Amino acid sequence: MAGNSFGHLFRFTTWGESHGPAIGVVVDGVPPRLPIDEAALQHWLDRRRPGQSRFTTQRQEPDAVRILSGVFEGLTTGTPIALEIQNVDQRSKDYAEIKDRFRPGHADYTYWIKYGIRDYRGGGRSSARETASRVAAGGVARLVLGDGVQVRGALVQMGPHKINRANWDWNEIERNPFWCPDKQAAADWEFYLDGVRKSGSSTGAVIEIVASGVPAGWGSPLYRKLDADLASALMSINAVKGVEIGDGFDAASLSGEANADELRMIDGTAQFLSNHAGGILGGISSGQEIVARFAVKPTSSILAERQTVTIDGTDTAIHTKGRHDPCVGIRAVPVGEAMVACVLADHKLLARAQTG
Amino acid sequence: MAGNSFGHLFRFTTWGESHGPAIGVVVDGVPPRLPIDEAALQHWLDRRRPGQSRFTTQRQEPDAVRILSGVFEGLTTGTPIALEIQNVDQRSKDYAEIKDRFRPGHADYTYWIKYGIRDYRGGGRSSARETASRVAAGGVARLVLGDGVQVRGALVQMGPHKINRANWDWNEIERNPFWCPDKQAAADWEFYLDGVRKSGSSTGAVIEIVASGVPAGWGSPLYRKLDADLASALMSINAVKGVEIGDGFDAASLSGEANADELRMIDGTAQFLSNHAGGILGGISSGQEIVARFAVKPTSSILAERQTVTIDGTDTAIHTKGRHDPCVGIRAVPVGEAMVACVLADHKLLARAQTG
Amino acid sequence: MAGNSFGHLFRFTTWGESHGPAIGVVVDGVPPRLPIDEAALQHWLDRRRPGQSRFTTQRQEPDAVRILSGVFEGLTTGTPIALEIQNVDQRSKDYAEIKDRFRPGHADYTYWIKYGIRDYRGGGRSSARETASRVAAGGVARLVLGDGVQVRGALVQMGPHKINRANWDWNEIERNPFWCPDKQAAADWEFYLDGVRKSGSSTGAVIEIVASGVPAGWGSPLYRKLDADLASALMSINAVKGVEIGDGFDAASLSGEANADELRMIDGTAQFLSNHAGGILGGISSGQEIVARFAVKPTSSILAERQTVTIDGTDTAIHTKGRHDPCVGIRAVPVGEAMVACVLADHKLLARAQTG
Amino acid sequence: MAGNSFGHLFRFTTWGESHGPAIGVVVDGVPPRLPIDEAALQHWLDRRRPGQSRFTTQRQEPDAVRILSGVFEGLTTGTPIALEIQNVDQRSKDYAEIKDRFRPGHADYTYWIKYGIRDYRGGGRSSARETASRVAAGGVARLVLGDGVQVRGALVQMGPHKINRANWDWNEIERNPFWCPDKQAAADWEFYLDGVRKSGSSTGAVIEIVASGVPAGWGSPLYRKLDADLASALMSINAVKGVEIGDGFDAASLSGEANADELRMIDGTAQFLSNHAGGILGGISSGQEIVARFAVKPTSSILAERQTVTIDGTDTAIHTKGRHDPCVGIRAVPVGEAMVACVLADHKLLARAQTG
Repeated sequence: MAGNSFGHLFRFTTWGESHGPAIGVVVDGVPPRLPIDEAALQHWLDRRRPGQSRFTTQRQEPDAVRILSGVFEGLTTGTPIALEIQNVDQRSKDYAEIKDRFRPGHADYTYWIKYGIRDYRGGGRSSARETASRVAAGGVARLVLGDGVQVRGALVQMGPHKINRANWDWNEIERNPFWCPDKQAAADWEFYLDGVRKSGSSTGAVIEIVASGVPAGWGSPLYRKLDADLASALMSINAVKGVEIGDGFDAASLSGEANADELRMIDGTAQFLSNHAGGILGGISSGQEIVARFAVKPTSSILAERQTVTIDGTDTAIHTKGRHDPCVGIRAVPVGEAMVACVLADHKLLARAQTG
Repeated sequence: MAGNSFGHLFRFTTWGESHGPAIGVVVDGVPPRLPIDEAALQHWLDRRRPGQSRFTTQRQEPDAVRILSGVFEGLTTGTPIALEIQNVDQRSKDYAEIKDRFRPGHADYTYWIKYGIRDYRGGGRSSARETASRVAAGGVARLVLGDGVQVRGALVQMGPHKINRANWDWNEIERNPFWCPDKQAAADWEFYLDGVRKSGSSTGAVIEIVASGVPAGWGSPLYRKLDADLASALMSINAVKGVEIGDGFDAASLSGEANADELRMIDGTAQFLSNHAGGILGGISSGQEIVARFAVKPTSSILAERQTVTIDGTDTAIHTKGRHDPCVGIRAVPVGEAMVACVLADHKLLARAQTG
Repeated sequence: MAGNSFGHLFRFTTWGESHGPAIGVVVDGVPPRLPIDEAALQHWLDRRRPGQSRFTTQRQEPDAVRILSGVFEGLTTGTPIALEIQNVDQRSKDYAEIKDRFRPGHADYTYWIKYGIRDYRGGGRSSARETASRVAAGGVARLVLGDGVQVRGALVQMGPHKINRANWDWNEIERNPFWCPDKQAAADWEFYLDGVRKSGSSTGAVIEIVASGVPAGWGSPLYRKLDADLASALMSINAVKGVEIGDGFDAASLSGEANADELRMIDGTAQFLSNHAGGILGGISSGQEIVARFAVKPTSSILAERQTVTIDGTDTAIHTKGRHDPCVGIRAVPVGEAMVACVLADHKLLARAQTG
Repeated sequence: MAGNSFGHLFRFTTWGESHGPAIGVVVDGVPPRLPIDEAALQHWLDRRRPGQSRFTTQRQEPDAVRILSGVFEGLTTGTPIALEIQNVDQRSKDYAEIKDRFRPGHADYTYWIKYGIRDYRGGGRSSARETASRVAAGGVARLVLGDGVQVRGALVQMGPHKINRANWDWNEIERNPFWCPDKQAAADWEFYLDGVRKSGSSTGAVIEIVASGVPAGWGSPLYRKLDADLASALMSINAVKGVEIGDGFDAASLSGEANADELRMIDGTAQFLSNHAGGILGGISSGQEIVARFAVKPTSSILAERQTVTIDGTDTAIHTKGRHDPCVGIRAVPVGEAMVACVLADHKLLARAQTG
């Protein structure tokens, strides 16, 4: 019920605002005796951390995560793991002038209408800063999943520019500032995004998350379908406007013959000959790679002046001078990975509960 | 947690298999003193009912809904409303030959792996027959929403063929067997789908659901976002592979200037000048129309022979002779409407709880 | 959230009113491939069934349970099990005169204030008839627990008359109409309760539920403590006003030395030398017998005239002429057993989820 | 599901161990625009704080609470409120010798069996130190309830010594170190407890919580009954072994005539002439005072040597030299108040959701 918690058995609760003293997450339901330390979690947070290239916001946050509970002598104890990240580079002054105006594309207006109060500093609770907590939780989820399950993400489209899937090379994603698996596309995007950035504009993106090593049998009918939980998880990320599993919207254009993945016995086990389904049938994992994609809208904070109104009901205009990402989709890659890892960890435990 | 329940405050639980004696749904959390009778619910069930045109399965099910509890003298009492629908036209013999073989594209394989047991008759629990329960629950949800909120759906793409949005006319959707708002597209689809049907093939579809009259302020940060719940709701429908809100995946290609909806005072109230966001900002309704779309894969049951394996691990082939929909997306329209209505009813109550 | 559901992983939802067409329960989360049939569930329902002695209401209900889903070829499938019981002997005329008056001790007044509508026939949803659904769910829970766990209940106090615990013999509970484990007390109670019954009065009772065979390690800190869930489960039964675990309220009078159960290695395993704790420490089962007790208030429907008011705010009086139990606590024994079985089944699955 | 969260709409999640760096709680679902500051919460924490008399543990903890999120310019924002309390006086050395031995009456053994790992320092997660987080959450709950609802607690029995209810004076509870409403009993207890303390023993207690100002209509049938949630809330407190509502176990001894509270129109409104029910009928508040009691077992840490075993399965003995409460029930009074306040705040929101 609580709007700031996610998951069922592997469940986390996040708290904190962009310009408060800290943000954090409490992760509950973690199995005991898993080796864990702050460095293991920091690895994932560093991937999401801003200010690492000219293509992300220049806000300087070390995002150093601290474990406050749930760990004893280097092992999880089965009790809730509280993780905390101090806010360091807050610069509240950047935001003073937007105090009374609703930024188009942001949650300013809806928060104001709903709550009648708004922490306008950096978006408050609606800031993408909250996603650091998700990444921390995702780090714990990966420990629950173990080495057998690998969750990786890649940017497959920036603005209107898609990768050439024939060029896909997972090794490339660490070699460019975009988590792009297509070396050529990454080069093109660098030129493209520099233009966007210099003009003070922004652009959207599509991210693909692939989970390999997931055994068949995770997920449930009907409202706890693995894909339904993935859809909820990914749509809950700031600025996401669409989610796909497997062929996604392209499946609508296919014939039944083209879409349904055939089975054959190979090396003594049943194997699918294709993966249009994205590794999920009837809400349950099939043993194939889980493939999910999500679309991120362009960053709403842009330099161009935009029409808006004040909280007092007066027409005005606004343009954003703060530090922002020209393509917030880039930093959504580790966030998407984290959310998928959390869903999978949850369903690993759920599957164990019902079917042992 | 329970995989067969949906919602938080307005919450329903479905049960039943395709070829069991009945299916049903228990709807909990309904406010008291709402006028309700079986006819009001039957209206919505009749829209989903099979066998009404040559483009849906010829299984003949009256889908007569019966209210077993929660209603007294024509009014809801605030206690759970149990709704039951008898299964009439079951014809189990149709399915005997697929008892030991996994139908590609269906949940046969994953249910078998997960549960080690499978009600193979008509897909058992994974059958789209379960969606009748959702439509019944959606009927109750509409009563909770009241006349001020209208939830309507339309088929906007069949196979590769999209409507021309310039032709959109809500009055058309009742005039063709496809819930198509574009008269010309409906005519074209009739020809197209006849070809698909006669060849024993199938095709996918995209459905758009529009909710009007939703006040600003429904929804919550962050994991109970209105769009996250909509994504979960729609992705939980059988055969759905993608969900979008507002511009959806197209938002990835937009610039920040094009995407962020501007605000202006009009007639004394703040109004948006466009609706790329689909009526949701930061997970909270903005007062605009809520716009969601979902993609349905082509029906997996097709006449063409397809490779598969048996439950004993032997290569074999299968083709479906039973009664099926050439485009199951058509009947997904009332199901999508119902799920959106349920999410909105839930968030209406949630909003009232926290902010009075 | 939904007020008519209980449990987390093993979760059931009940519906139905005393004088509606039927009552029922949907049990979700059941592991697959458990042998089950209607007779196995009927066994437990027959123990709660009214009209079996002169000490329970003479309402004649066969309480025949029907399985509508979730079972295939005699085995659970892992999908929701819908159970339904027809209401047969409703006699609505019995209740016509109490339509506009609140019966003292009943929920009439609070339902009216809360909902503004009231199914006055037999208490509607607040009738103890709902407990038949709990017993049906408990029958499924016992299958989940397996033969290794035994859940038994006994009446240990009727009105002011307690059993002599030195006489405790589980074999006696089936030999008297009270589920009393003390042969002598049962004989005394028969005389006592006849007096209560003939005078049109009623009396309360205390029930003790003992679960043996529960392994150490079920339960969780802190708000999912096994005893917290048991307390919720038992207090949710109609007319229950108190719950105890182990020594319960008597523990308040003990010294630390007397209360804390010591441990010794016996036959190679750690064993407790006493069981003041009632088999639960820190919310987690210790491997000893789980011992819970609950107090049931006297039946509120009595022959004596009692002061009350009408729904229109007029002073009046009421006395109950319908069929009622002189000691509703008797029939609460199988209900208490069922609730304890449901809590244990739930925690069995929860334990498996987190700690494998 | 998550074992460290409590509540539905007003929901809190606690974390932290006795000897970790800090403990804390995240409170979600709080309505916006409620005035709040750290001093308002500190008031309640100071009541539970140890070391204030010779009758509580001499551990010196300032228990200074810090608000980390969810508050802006002195008002709640509707987003999660993170509260944190540093652990200051940890003295881990006190506990080194009990590292490998299970303390009788504590959760040491069950945590070890369940998790296979145990933070033995001060009981780790099972320490009563966690209750400080509950009290902090309770402070927020009181803000949600507003001034119209008052939640007060009193010690009504220490060891075998009960108060004389005729002497009840709420003004007395702040004038003695026991929260005792009976001046004479308080004087007697001081003598009694000094004896217990000096002998290194301990004693149990019974606490009564009274909530006044609760309107009729809060609570729900059947598994979200107000009393069922109170039972769960109070039984979840460390060392609690029993919970009663209204007359509780004494109700079992009453006749139907004596137990059922009659109604009369007084000053134009329906009023009950007695309150055996403890303010709850059918799980829903009646508008009378809510009365709940709970029994706390004697502190398990005592000076006398007690038999136990080691984690390696060897017989041994143990006696506790650390700082402990001779009657932990004293400090349970503010904890019980806090839990009742949280349940009521939750049901206030739940009631508003369903019935407006």
